[in-house]
Amino acid sequence: MTSKGIPRSHPRYWSLVLREQLVEAWRHGIVVPEGLIAHGRGECFDYLIGEETQWFAREAVRAAAAALLLAQHPVVSVNGNAAALAAEGLVRLAELLDAPLEVNLFYRTEERARRIEKLLRSLGARRVLGVEDATARIPGLPHPRGKVSPEGILRADVVLVALEDGDRTEALRRMGKTVIAIDLNPLSRTARMASITIVDNIVRAVPLLVETVRELKTRPRGELEEILRNYDNDRVLAGALRFISERLERLAREGVAMDPLAANGPS
Amino acid sequence: MTSKGIPRSHPRYWSLVLREQLVEAWRHGIVVPEGLIAHGRGECFDYLIGEETQWFAREAVRAAAAALLLAQHPVVSVNGNAAALAAEGLVRLAELLDAPLEVNLFYRTEERARRIEKLLRSLGARRVLGVEDATARIPGLPHPRGKVSPEGILRADVVLVALEDGDRTEALRRMGKTVIAIDLNPLSRTARMASITIVDNIVRAVPLLVETVRELKTRPRGELEEILRNYDNDRVLAGALRFISERLERLAREGVAMDPLAANGPS
Repeated sequence: MTSKGIPRSHPRYWSLVLREQLVEAWRHGIVVPEGLIAHGRGECFDYLIGEETQWFAREAVRAAAAALLLAQHPVVSVNGNAAALAAEGLVRLAELLDAPLEVNLFYRTEERARRIEKLLRSLGARRVLGVEDATARIPGLPHPRGKVSPEGILRADVVLVALEDGDRTEALRRMGKTVIAIDLNPLSRTARMASITIVDNIVRAVPLLVETVRELKTRPRGELEEILRNYDNDRVLAGALRFISERLERLAREGVAMDPLAANGPS
Repeated sequence: MTSKGIPRSHPRYWSLVLREQLVEAWRHGIVVPEGLIAHGRGECFDYLIGEETQWFAREAVRAAAAALLLAQHPVVSVNGNAAALAAEGLVRLAELLDAPLEVNLFYRTEERARRIEKLLRSLGARRVLGVEDATARIPGLPHPRGKVSPEGILRADVVLVALEDGDRTEALRRMGKTVIAIDLNPLSRTARMASITIVDNIVRAVPLLVETVRELKTRPRGELEEILRNYDNDRVLAGALRFISERLERLAREGVAMDPLAANGPS
C-alpha cells in the first residue's frame, strides 16, 4: 500500500501516510521494530484526541516555547521515531534556538545513530551531537541508554524530548532539568514526569512549536517568564484525559457509527 | 531487552513480554511491520480497559461460545498477529469445535502463510487450511486479500476472526455469516461490523473462550439459543466505550499519578 494508493478523501488518510512513513524509516534502519509498536500506541491516542491539536497541547506548546527561549542551554533530543516523523521541523527548531540536536536512542546502535545524524545534517542541521559525542552518562540509567554528550543533554537546562522512555525522562528530571515532552499518551510515565507535556502528534506539535518560538522570540523576558509561571502541567494532563473521556462518552451515547474516525484501516 | 531482563514486579511486565513476543514473531517472518503498529494500537486500548477482561468481554465470550457450538461449519481464522500471540489457544479451540483453522492474511505472501501453517501444525492442529486451499474468493474484496478456502471461510456459517481488517469483516457479514471478532478497539470498523465483538486482549480472550466452549459444550441447544437471543452487541460496544470513558474521568479527577498502569515502558 503506497500513499499514491490512498485517496486523500479517505477519513484516515494522514494516519495511513504516517504509518507508511514509519515503515519506510524502519526499512532504512532509522526506526526499530519496537518503534513501530510505539507508533501504533501513539496512533490510538491520536485517534482519541480527535487527530487535532487540542487546547491542552496549545497551552503546553506556548509554555514550551517560552522555556526554550529562556534556556541557557536548550537541547533538542532526537530518537528514531522523531527522526522518521519530524526531522525537518526539529532541525528548524534547533536553528531558531541556536541549540544542538542530540541523537538519543532507547535501542542504541552506532549504525542507527549515524543514520539519524546523517539525516539531520542532510536537512541542514549545523550542530548534531551523535555517537562520537556521547562520552558522558546520565546517573542512574543503565548503559548504553544513559549515554549522552557533555556538550548537549548533560549540561542542558532545558531538554525537548519526543516519544521518550519514562526512565530517561525521570532521570533527566532528577538531574534538575526542565523536560519538555511530546507524547500522545497522557498516562505515560514520560507525560507525568515531564515539566511541560505536549499531548499531541509530533507531526502537528513540532511545526506549531516552531511557529510559536518564532512568534515569542522578540518578546521581553518578563513576558516569557509570566507564561511559564501561569502554566500548570497537571491541569493540562487532566484536561487531556477529560477530553478523551468526554469524547468516548459522547460516542457511546450517539452510537459508534457516527464517528468518522471509526472508519479505520486494518486493525 | 529480553523477558529475562524485565523484572516480574514491573507494572508493565506482561505488556513488555507480549511486545517482545511480537518482535520475535516478526523476526521469524510470521508478523509484518504493519502488524507491529497494529499491536501498538491494541496495547493502547488494552491499557485503557485496565489490562483485564471486563464484563463486556465476558458477555461477548459467552455469546461467541454459544454461536460456535451452534454452528454447522465454524471456522477459526488465523492471521500473523493472532498466530504470534495465541496460536496454541486457537488450535485447542478448533479441536474442541472440530473446526478447521484457516490462515488468512491481510498482507498476504505464500511464505508467511506457510510459516503460520507450520506453526499451527507443530502445536497439534489437525485441519489447517492454507495456501493450497485458498482457491475461492470473497466477493467484493481485492485480490489477494479476498482469497479463501471453499472448505473453510467460504462455506462457514460462523467465523472467528481476531485483529481483523474492517473491509474483510464487512464482506463476510454481507455474505450472511456470523462474525465473531476479537478486537481491543471498540471503535474499529471490525468491532462495529461484527455480530459478536470481544473487546479484550487476544491472550486473555482465547483461553477464556476455550474454557467457556468446554463449559457450554454439554448444554442443551435451547440454552445456547437463549444465550444468543439475549445478547446485544450494541450494548456491549457502548459498555466498552463507557467503561474507558469513566476510567479516564476518574483518573483525571484523582490525578494521573494514582494509576499503576501509568508506569509504562518506553513510550
